[in-house]
Amino acid sequence: MNYGIHLDTAIGRLHDEGRYRTFIDIERRKGHFPHATWRRPDGTSRPVTVWCGNDYLGMGQHPDVLSAMHEALDATGAGSGGTRNISGTTVYHKELEAELADLHAKDAALLFTSAYIANDATLSTLPKLFPGLVILSDELNHASMIEGIRRNGGAKRIFRHNDLDHLRSLLEELPEETPKLIAFESIYSMDGDFAPIEAICDLADEFGALTYIDEVHAVGMYGPRGAGVAERDGLMQRIDIINGTLAKAYGVMGGYIATSAKMADAIRSYAPGFIFTTSLPPVVAAGATASVRHLKTDQALRDLHQQQAAILKLRLKGLGLPLIDHGSHIVPVIVGDPVHTKMLSDMLLTDNGIYVQPINFPTVPRGTERLRFTPSPVHGPLEIEALVKALDALWSHCALNRAELAG
Amino acid sequence: MNYGIHLDTAIGRLHDEGRYRTFIDIERRKGHFPHATWRRPDGTSRPVTVWCGNDYLGMGQHPDVLSAMHEALDATGAGSGGTRNISGTTVYHKELEAELADLHAKDAALLFTSAYIANDATLSTLPKLFPGLVILSDELNHASMIEGIRRNGGAKRIFRHNDLDHLRSLLEELPEETPKLIAFESIYSMDGDFAPIEAICDLADEFGALTYIDEVHAVGMYGPRGAGVAERDGLMQRIDIINGTLAKAYGVMGGYIATSAKMADAIRSYAPGFIFTTSLPPVVAAGATASVRHLKTDQALRDLHQQQAAILKLRLKGLGLPLIDHGSHIVPVIVGDPVHTKMLSDMLLTDNGIYVQPINFPTVPRGTERLRFTPSPVHGPLEIEALVKALDALWSHCALNRAELAG
Repeated sequence: MNYGIHLDTAIGRLHDEGRYRTFIDIERRKGHFPHATWRRPDGTSRPVTVWCGNDYLGMGQHPDVLSAMHEALDATGAGSGGTRNISGTTVYHKELEAELADLHAKDAALLFTSAYIANDATLSTLPKLFPGLVILSDELNHASMIEGIRRNGGAKRIFRHNDLDHLRSLLEELPEETPKLIAFESIYSMDGDFAPIEAICDLADEFGALTYIDEVHAVGMYGPRGAGVAERDGLMQRIDIINGTLAKAYGVMGGYIATSAKMADAIRSYAPGFIFTTSLPPVVAAGATASVRHLKTDQALRDLHQQQAAILKLRLKGLGLPLIDHGSHIVPVIVGDPVHTKMLSDMLLTDNGIYVQPINFPTVPRGTERLRFTPSPVHGPLEIEALVKALDALWSHCALNRAELAG
Repeated sequence: MNYGIHLDTAIGRLHDEGRYRTFIDIERRKGHFPHATWRRPDGTSRPVTVWCGNDYLGMGQHPDVLSAMHEALDATGAGSGGTRNISGTTVYHKELEAELADLHAKDAALLFTSAYIANDATLSTLPKLFPGLVILSDELNHASMIEGIRRNGGAKRIFRHNDLDHLRSLLEELPEETPKLIAFESIYSMDGDFAPIEAICDLADEFGALTYIDEVHAVGMYGPRGAGVAERDGLMQRIDIINGTLAKAYGVMGGYIATSAKMADAIRSYAPGFIFTTSLPPVVAAGATASVRHLKTDQALRDLHQQQAAILKLRLKGLGLPLIDHGSHIVPVIVGDPVHTKMLSDMLLTDNGIYVQPINFPTVPRGTERLRFTPSPVHGPLEIEALVKALDALWSHCALNRAELAG
């Protein structure tokens, strides 16, 4: 049995399709976000500006977050030392869960080591709790939701992206007594478009379905206290389970769900991905608590975030770049070919010190490969000017289309 | 559709079986391990000694670990800000992976957010890389391995725990050209028994199978550099994929695999649980690196760990308690009933300030519910004396059997 040949085949396929990933080694410098140091493979380094991070608000360098983390390290040490059930529940975890439950106006929140595992563990456990459950899932849901829905081979229906008619027709096909759950995202991170949350909730009410929303690219950034798009639109109480992350706008690590006390208790008790893993380090929980708490009141930072995104989009539209704009903070520029996208990314990094990772299949559908920019409050006029100039020159230099693919 | 009734049923089942879990709120105090503070549900607190943590060597309070973490926070901030591919690879991640690859004398290591997800993501991805792969899995493998093996509905055969004859007979039934992988643990954490690693490797050679070992309860603690039982037994080079954790003996958080360059490249490229999740915070990676590095040379700490475990086992055997002893550092005392186990745990905590969590189904088979003690170098003579006295009194008080169930 020659196992090596199979590995060669699998890796070769990625090279052939131009979507072999090379991790770029980036070290951000606290106090200087979005500036960072790129360590080249040969060991030399150069300063770069990060334009593709998910620390959307720069909270990873916020003094409140960092001092909470230093304090937790000094008080209690490095790791938690156990699973939540076996010595790994601390005041830091309890405080963070209380903070998150309050954020989403739910009874309870449950921490996971990531939002990935929160989605995966929760969605794969729900069919155990509701025998016969059918999950209706948006076709563009994140990989972690897809993995969770698929995991135990439970029944599912995939509805076309944001297509309410299709969702309705799938709901109509199901018997009234069948337990149902509609799973979707508030903001789809690759196009930056919003779900029709209210209309989905209306359908859920009409057909007696539970609702599950992934607000990973919205928490911290939308809503008067940063609870996400459902909060902004006054719809939080109509969502049964809200999934969020502490690793993007909150700048730290970890994920969670916020839900009813009963649902949290059941998930906590039945989800292997919650039960059988070491809990988050207290230092991480402490940082996240400080960040969530801070963003409950810092509307100015949210406003600045939206403003920077609006400015960048305006500038890129001015150049006629094929930009997708659904009014969110996410700025995708479509290139449409994995090799070209990689080449543009390499040129920006090497020639301009601008770091934006190429986004390829399977993260996005083939033919929609893109550069995806994530402006933030720490990306000021100088950084935006440098990016716009570099893109303008590059588009001309490479004779790329302008605006044809814009959404 | 009344979803609440289903949740009541699911939670009620746990109460009925006496295995509803109540998380005990514990805060360890740096510099005072294993001493900690128990926060009671009413808000009052009392000092306790933690006897069930997985920070087996007390590395969570080691100065090298903590200073590395403080430094990383100061240098680069809180979170990584992205997935490994999209701005979330830093020098901290690279250093840790290099340290782990060196530890296991492999080409490469891959970091995951936990050893749970390392098992789950790797084992569920291997069938994609080796079409037709059959995974032969020890029946007592950890939940995370079971979840990974099951996930994509790949072919599997379950062999009786540590039963080489059964494993051989299952291998014999498979066609020679079928890709095969034997997945097992070096130390099974609930009984503390060892796998027959060499004999399993011999079978793998004979039948052309890959080998996958979970060394989660061994890394840091066994082997001259802490690489685990396979290192201790001179067998590391015969294992294709080694899984380990940074959250137990290393005292921080995260998990990994160490393997060939080609295998790591393929897993990195195809595992959704690796690709689509924010990378570990630099602060966590920095702490783990310091810990792994330290334990490569601190054999004295490993010796002390084994010595404390041996002393505790000797003392408990002296009392005639039903102890399982396979010569590892894990000390399970069988109670055999979930309600009694919970009661003993509660009495130890409330009356003696000794915190040891009851271990129930599904973590262990029904009828083998137990108290599982984890002695460590920070559990000195005073702590051991207090534990032994408390258990002796409790066993007499509750008229429990002595030694009948001892393994």
